[in-house]
Amino acid sequence: MNKKQLFQLILKKKSFLCIGLDTDLKRIPKHLLKTDDPIFEFNKQIIDATHDLAVAYKPNIAFYESLGSQGWKSLEKTIEYLNTFGDELFTIADAKRGDIGNTSKKYAEAFFVNMGFDSLTLAPYMGEDSITPFLNYPNKWAIVLALTSNQGAFDFQYVESVYEKNRLFETVLKTVVKWGTEDNIMFVVGATKADMLQPIRDIVPHHFLLVPGVGAQGGSLKEVAEFGMNKQVGLLINSSRGIIYASDAEDFAKKARMEAEKLQKEMASLLADKFDL
Amino acid sequence: MNKKQLFQLILKKKSFLCIGLDTDLKRIPKHLLKTDDPIFEFNKQIIDATHDLAVAYKPNIAFYESLGSQGWKSLEKTIEYLNTFGDELFTIADAKRGDIGNTSKKYAEAFFVNMGFDSLTLAPYMGEDSITPFLNYPNKWAIVLALTSNQGAFDFQYVESVYEKNRLFETVLKTVVKWGTEDNIMFVVGATKADMLQPIRDIVPHHFLLVPGVGAQGGSLKEVAEFGMNKQVGLLINSSRGIIYASDAEDFAKKARMEAEKLQKEMASLLADKFDL
Repeated sequence: MNKKQLFQLILKKKSFLCIGLDTDLKRIPKHLLKTDDPIFEFNKQIIDATHDLAVAYKPNIAFYESLGSQGWKSLEKTIEYLNTFGDELFTIADAKRGDIGNTSKKYAEAFFVNMGFDSLTLAPYMGEDSITPFLNYPNKWAIVLALTSNQGAFDFQYVESVYEKNRLFETVLKTVVKWGTEDNIMFVVGATKADMLQPIRDIVPHHFLLVPGVGAQGGSLKEVAEFGMNKQVGLLINSSRGIIYASDAEDFAKKARMEAEKLQKEMASLLADKFDL
Repeated sequence: MNKKQLFQLILKKKSFLCIGLDTDLKRIPKHLLKTDDPIFEFNKQIIDATHDLAVAYKPNIAFYESLGSQGWKSLEKTIEYLNTFGDELFTIADAKRGDIGNTSKKYAEAFFVNMGFDSLTLAPYMGEDSITPFLNYPNKWAIVLALTSNQGAFDFQYVESVYEKNRLFETVLKTVVKWGTEDNIMFVVGATKADMLQPIRDIVPHHFLLVPGVGAQGGSLKEVAEFGMNKQVGLLINSSRGIIYASDAEDFAKKARMEAEKLQKEMASLLADKFDL
């Protein structure tokens, strides 16, 4: 999917919602534990109940890895199922990888070639050759961490450099944009840092931003849209726990849909203010 | 394994060699492709041929992930086999993970609890809550990227901050040491940056450093030892491709041993200059 297609998908669905599949055996409804693959079963029911309300799904890879090769199989089945929706959904592997070029190529193979994810989140610390191997795949995206939603973001991401007093996340944005295009690079900007969206938009006015931290982590959808939305929307806003764990009973998928719908309706209203829907 | 035990293991084996298991179906000897699990078969034969010469093994997780759930199974069998050597080997999952606390806990479960690795490499970009979940396991280690061996290291790791003109890798070292101890934190410092070992030792005189980049990437063992060795050695020097791909014929394990032995002998001589062996 390229940027224009993603923009059109957002207008069509009146949604820029991304649903995070942080699927945890300890938190899914007990009745699913009797099935062959509870993780996939949970994901499938969540996807079935919400796919008209969301434009993207984001499996959080740690949750699958914590279950070993079995978990990896559940992940493979999940992305295979997501891919049956074709261009109706954008898929994000939330893996936050980053390694030397030779190794990054292997991660690109794992997520883009073998599993067919549309995009992968990446940490920028190791620099250019850790990112560029992901930019050689048509219609695939590198989503690079800029300013994250967690408390630890304050440790290094705000460190000011002697050169133009850029904070590290600003240096990252200014440097990483040179390595690719608006059609293969996005950035992660936490919703808990909505006040930072204006300086970030000054640097990357046209890029898409993946924004986690709405919901369980406390970010505000309205503020993010106000300061972060651009002419092609330019936002994918993620909610994970707030949606998928809305209920731990048999009605979990229905309750997840209700939570997703609340966000989608708010998004539709924010979109209507700026676009002809 | 704690720091003292690792030091004693190094003296006993006269080696601070770590062998990187960057095991690639395209590069292993063709005759192994007929076996049920070529990746594990290759690793086992490499380990059998070299375990008296190395103190540590470091599977590079990308290479396993690129083979999907099958690759993850090969990884599980490899760490299970390494663990049969007990305290004779130190094991490193080279995964370069780093995520918010809630997610980092899942990575810790995956690598420390389920697979029983002694340590895991981590990227520092997301700060304290991305690292601390790994510090709550007795005798387990977080190995945090400081200054890496690749060209991309120059993009962000050398950025000077306004505060004391620290370069980012120095800020990382100074900050991360506060989160743990010399018994649960190591740092990655590339051998290709041997001239940086002196300023790094000024900041972390007593910590262990994991040093990749000797061999295929061009770093010098002698220089690293000269500037990096401390009173408890404090170095694990990794070589991957230079050892494991010394031959792609049936004699691959024997040739790998010969390459490992060259490094081990050089290490024994460097150790003899400083310690009573």
